[in-house]
Amino acid sequence: MSHWLYLPELASTGTAAVLEDAEAAHAVRARRLRVGDVVCVFDGAGRTAAARISEVIKRPFEVHLALEAQQHWAPPAARIHLTSALPKGDRQTTMLDMVTQLGVTDFTPVNFERSVSRVGTGSQDRWRRVLIESCKQSQQPWMPLVHSPMDLGEWISSPTDDGVVNLVAHKEGESRNAVIEESLVGAKQVRLLIGPEGGFSENELAQLDHTQTTMVSLGGGVLRVEAAAVALTALVTRTLSDSRIGSRPDKGSA
Amino acid sequence: MSHWLYLPELASTGTAAVLEDAEAAHAVRARRLRVGDVVCVFDGAGRTAAARISEVIKRPFEVHLALEAQQHWAPPAARIHLTSALPKGDRQTTMLDMVTQLGVTDFTPVNFERSVSRVGTGSQDRWRRVLIESCKQSQQPWMPLVHSPMDLGEWISSPTDDGVVNLVAHKEGESRNAVIEESLVGAKQVRLLIGPEGGFSENELAQLDHTQTTMVSLGGGVLRVEAAAVALTALVTRTLSDSRIGSRPDKGSA
Repeated sequence: MSHWLYLPELASTGTAAVLEDAEAAHAVRARRLRVGDVVCVFDGAGRTAAARISEVIKRPFEVHLALEAQQHWAPPAARIHLTSALPKGDRQTTMLDMVTQLGVTDFTPVNFERSVSRVGTGSQDRWRRVLIESCKQSQQPWMPLVHSPMDLGEWISSPTDDGVVNLVAHKEGESRNAVIEESLVGAKQVRLLIGPEGGFSENELAQLDHTQTTMVSLGGGVLRVEAAAVALTALVTRTLSDSRIGSRPDKGSA
Repeated sequence: MSHWLYLPELASTGTAAVLEDAEAAHAVRARRLRVGDVVCVFDGAGRTAAARISEVIKRPFEVHLALEAQQHWAPPAARIHLTSALPKGDRQTTMLDMVTQLGVTDFTPVNFERSVSRVGTGSQDRWRRVLIESCKQSQQPWMPLVHSPMDLGEWISSPTDDGVVNLVAHKEGESRNAVIEESLVGAKQVRLLIGPEGGFSENELAQLDHTQTTMVSLGGGVLRVEAAAVALTALVTRTLSDSRIGSRPDKGSA
């Protein structure tokens, strides 16, 4: 199992590449990689390549790589789109890290009446760095896309073509796995909606009542946003990995 | 939904109690509670009581409470015992926080051949503070019990009476919910085993092969310990909350 390194321009790269700045420093300092080590470079858009480290320069850090043939992985058969209230502070990155490991493909922050956090300056950059690290960790060739925040009204009125399945985390929701499985058969995009910790307002619940959604109970106690997000993501990715329900391209076949 | 405050000596407390030190400071500073506010005190062992704040003293902090009748909640019908490799650093508390919210009742660190972290000095104290906060957050009257670390050999040779179900997180494991559901019917204790990030050794896998366990696939990519722990816990607590499979005492009936 080789280390993964991020090379966003992989598509336009031939047989040689140079990593610089933070990525090079990370490879040498944190990963302690040396000349001769074999790594995997990825661009977060489905391309990977095995690469051998041919030279390491310090001050400033540069890692020179000799690349082998690229592989191009098929995108996941079903997109898993986390649309959730923003947790506070560090819990945002904890959430994004874990759901990326579990296979989320898209993330959109949603604003609710009782939301306590909004997208701040610098959030997108911080999230991007977390997503890169999570892809490396979990060896995901596709990096989740982060979309602009939306209000619940926009979420509800988003056009949902055939194949979009909406699941909403809710204490009083469905607890039978079989019902969730049935709702996911043939899904092309699964949107997971997680409300704020103060819960949905009466008005929001009424709006959701008129929308094609399945409310899903997650068990346990009162959940923080990130715990609910991870639990619902785990339920969906696991269910879709059952070949009778979803079909996820096998990495080995690329 | 009132704030929860921790009062470990609730069992021997009459109609008045005083919170001191960190718990009192937390109530006043972080929660901004004042005289007249109604809170819920809990002892982590199934007892709760509604309480009204009768006096707040600063320097040093004291919160005086007038307690109403105690409630005694039944323990969960099935214990959910997380037995896992220790993640590094802060990821230990992230894991314990989330699995407590989801309803884990017991935690035992397990040492594997490829374990990178061991229980350190002060870990137990730090974990205990996290568990208290997670119980408050998720309104769980039962606090998870933290047991001494064990080696995998001890885990395997632990006496498993009738009603103990062993689930092991494993990439190549079972992906059908129905099989997991079947294994959980009538469970009195579910032990969730999460290996280290380097994976089980050949030797460990061979030992596990001779043990009564179900290997469970969690979907997604290569998972960190805490992501796997949360995903497997979520699967189990959710499945047990399905009344056809598990029966969890209803808080409302205490």
